Amino acid sequence: MSKRDFLSTADLTRPQLDDLLDLASRAKGKRLTQGLAGKTLGMMFFQPSLRTRVSFETAMVQLGGHCINLSSHDLYELEPEEQAVMDGRAEEHVIDAARTLSRYVDALGVRAVSRTGTWERDRQELLLRSYAQHSSVPVINLETCFEHPCQAIADAMTMREHLPQLAGKKLTLLWCNHPEPKSLGPTHSILRVAALLGMHVTLAHPLGFEVDGEVLEHAGTLARAADGSVEVENDLATACSGAEVLYARSWGCTKYWDDPEREAMVKRSLQDWKVDEQLMQKTANALLMHPLPVRRNVAATDAVLDGPRSVIYDQAENRVHVQKAILMQLLQ
Amino acid sequence: MSKRDFLSTADLTRPQLDDLLDLASRAKGKRLTQGLAGKTLGMMFFQPSLRTRVSFETAMVQLGGHCINLSSHDLYELEPEEQAVMDGRAEEHVIDAARTLSRYVDALGVRAVSRTGTWERDRQELLLRSYAQHSSVPVINLETCFEHPCQAIADAMTMREHLPQLAGKKLTLLWCNHPEPKSLGPTHSILRVAALLGMHVTLAHPLGFEVDGEVLEHAGTLARAADGSVEVENDLATACSGAEVLYARSWGCTKYWDDPEREAMVKRSLQDWKVDEQLMQKTANALLMHPLPVRRNVAATDAVLDGPRSVIYDQAENRVHVQKAILMQLLQ
Amino acid sequence: MSKRDFLSTADLTRPQLDDLLDLASRAKGKRLTQGLAGKTLGMMFFQPSLRTRVSFETAMVQLGGHCINLSSHDLYELEPEEQAVMDGRAEEHVIDAARTLSRYVDALGVRAVSRTGTWERDRQELLLRSYAQHSSVPVINLETCFEHPCQAIADAMTMREHLPQLAGKKLTLLWCNHPEPKSLGPTHSILRVAALLGMHVTLAHPLGFEVDGEVLEHAGTLARAADGSVEVENDLATACSGAEVLYARSWGCTKYWDDPEREAMVKRSLQDWKVDEQLMQKTANALLMHPLPVRRNVAATDAVLDGPRSVIYDQAENRVHVQKAILMQLLQ
Repeated sequence: MSKRDFLSTADLTRPQLDDLLDLASRAKGKRLTQGLAGKTLGMMFFQPSLRTRVSFETAMVQLGGHCINLSSHDLYELEPEEQAVMDGRAEEHVIDAARTLSRYVDALGVRAVSRTGTWERDRQELLLRSYAQHSSVPVINLETCFEHPCQAIADAMTMREHLPQLAGKKLTLLWCNHPEPKSLGPTHSILRVAALLGMHVTLAHPLGFEVDGEVLEHAGTLARAADGSVEVENDLATACSGAEVLYARSWGCTKYWDDPEREAMVKRSLQDWKVDEQLMQKTANALLMHPLPVRRNVAATDAVLDGPRSVIYDQAENRVHVQKAILMQLLQ
Repeated sequence: MSKRDFLSTADLTRPQLDDLLDLASRAKGKRLTQGLAGKTLGMMFFQPSLRTRVSFETAMVQLGGHCINLSSHDLYELEPEEQAVMDGRAEEHVIDAARTLSRYVDALGVRAVSRTGTWERDRQELLLRSYAQHSSVPVINLETCFEHPCQAIADAMTMREHLPQLAGKKLTLLWCNHPEPKSLGPTHSILRVAALLGMHVTLAHPLGFEVDGEVLEHAGTLARAADGSVEVENDLATACSGAEVLYARSWGCTKYWDDPEREAMVKRSLQDWKVDEQLMQKTANALLMHPLPVRRNVAATDAVLDGPRSVIYDQAENRVHVQKAILMQLLQ
Repeated sequence: MSKRDFLSTADLTRPQLDDLLDLASRAKGKRLTQGLAGKTLGMMFFQPSLRTRVSFETAMVQLGGHCINLSSHDLYELEPEEQAVMDGRAEEHVIDAARTLSRYVDALGVRAVSRTGTWERDRQELLLRSYAQHSSVPVINLETCFEHPCQAIADAMTMREHLPQLAGKKLTLLWCNHPEPKSLGPTHSILRVAALLGMHVTLAHPLGFEVDGEVLEHAGTLARAADGSVEVENDLATACSGAEVLYARSWGCTKYWDDPEREAMVKRSLQDWKVDEQLMQKTANALLMHPLPVRRNVAATDAVLDGPRSVIYDQAENRVHVQKAILMQLLQ
């Protein structure tokens, strides 16, 4: 199968990452190249989106191409299970949607973050993987509960812009409180990318908010191969001490994945897991990162988000440049 | 009135059909002609759409034009009845929406499939016809419960690609089971188009699922004029025997049009109305067609839909080429 | 701060208005100038829209640019209050949405008409003003409950096309009945623009439907400076007598702003506040204007809306030309 997809950071090699970052840097600032004239990207959103939607459409338009946007409310309900007897609510199978769209568009982006059952089920990214399997055009992961690779590459680009060298730097990936249960996608993706870059990653979270074991192990292997490291720390202050990058985001509890009320109960006692100026002072003058959207004054205070070390809008902007690089690699 | 619309297969002559098919064949494969540069097509969807939405947008973009998409959830509720006293929920009359949009766009597509009452009412395609009457730009039928002409022309193109000659060929239009009550649009449209092409059409359905009498009679007249024929058959095996094209799709019961639960009850005993390999073997090695979306393993099995005689994705793809032809004829 | 926004008629000077109208007139009829090639306009709709959405997208496309459309159902819920502790339903703050979008698009349009509390609160246009404050790109008001400046400029253009001179002409802004409580945006905006043009404006409404006091006072000041006048009249027949332009629209009762049922009760006795042929005969052969959507046969009869003095579709069309002028001024 020669079709290339962009689904996961698990497949990414260091040379591929460097190529993407170099191409993204070249894309930045040069708006009107027409490298994708006549190409269309179909995007399917099964959940709301601001950054992903607008940054991809901006990227395609600036490259001379076009986006066709489909939201779940424009669509029939879709069946992802192979061999299903479709006598329920789903009106069309992903098989047919993927093969049909492959006749129309040049690439297909899919955001599918919804919880549909247990973590064991949702970590398989059924909907995204089904699209990738049945499409004959490249499929791009626009975020699942397991991975958000476009975000993580934009994050790497942002770190590279603000720090002279990434290898050996201390990055703390910090769990924050949040009223809703969130996806693990951005966390898993930046964890693997930072490991690949040889950073010293501290994954900081309260007990019970462990990330996926396979991803953690893989990130450790990647880090060791690049003279970096990955460790887990459950004490907030210890985790932030000496951090050169503080990457904050909430993520869900995989153990109570299908029981959000129980997760909410656990989180009531975790309100100190929040980034504020006091916490920032424990770091080594860390860059503050967050993939957005952020719950202001819950996950992080206004003061730090709007403070001098925050690079959250650079992260958002770099989505455009990185996605141009991804699209050019897949479509040219 | 010199404005041309594309509303129904009822108006179509054989030379017009041949012109459209020839133009569609020329469009196929040549992506980047810019024949509609600067033109915009407004599309209004009052129901979900995958193929129609994406194939039209692809067609316009590849011809250099632009689509403006409006879904019912982006819009006010619209009033289609002339002289209505608008003190209810509808915020705007179709008269005003049609005249306003005519000042903005070059053509207007309307999908309006919803059941709004009895079959006698819905067969009049009130919303579509009101748009056509009050627009000064061409209006295109994107499917009603009565007609889906764009689909039928794409179906004709697909048959022409796979069979050396269509006149005299045996086409079985087969009703299949489906958990939901469906529109009669695709069935009516392909029935008339196949008749126009001089095919021998067998309309196969269980008792109670008769199509609209006027359409059936008109198709018979068209077929006789082209040395073809139209017959109705209520026995599944007999209907498929010798078929060279098997065109499967479910459609609703017009008698119980405003009582979907009663239709559902009737359909419980009709689960053998499904295309499987056994049924395919009764045919003369028929092409298998379906306009999609299809309920896999209810209307037709995975084995036949993914089998060697299935041309369902060619039907879907040809929507783009046929719609380019329609748009070029209306707008150039 | 050198960024220019287009938020309100309050800031508009007569020379600026004349410039916009002249530029709009030049834009009319010349479709394919490419003055905004490579530019994107992001539009956020928190309520349904037909004219605003399609006229802006048409304007951008005809100028060579591109629109990215976001509806509230594509988005997270947004928090507009500064310093909010975001532990409720809102997933993202307007601060972050505005700053993020400013990295992607060249201008941002916002429609935010919803009632969120009292008139004192909603007249502050919190959501729009928050976008304007936190965006680094120009923000355009696509209608709030307080202003609809794009509509009013298009209305001025329409009057200028149909009347040789506007200064000194008698314009009656007429409240009409409507089953729903409506925004005051179009009324406030045309009131100020007509005053600026030196027209003699009669604001005609039943007792209880007073417009915002500050706007009324400002309009009076503007009118006097231009040798025009603004007066309020609560008698329907008196208000229409001698009118050269009759501008009809419903608007909400600010006193019962957060109690729509009470407003509905009041309106039950106001069903004669409707434009019909009899009322038109009281005018000096007035042009009939309405910004649409209009409740036919409630706010105005079919006979007058479709009659020889109605210019309602010219108003709608001129939205495109005026918005081209606005976009060119903000973006070139």
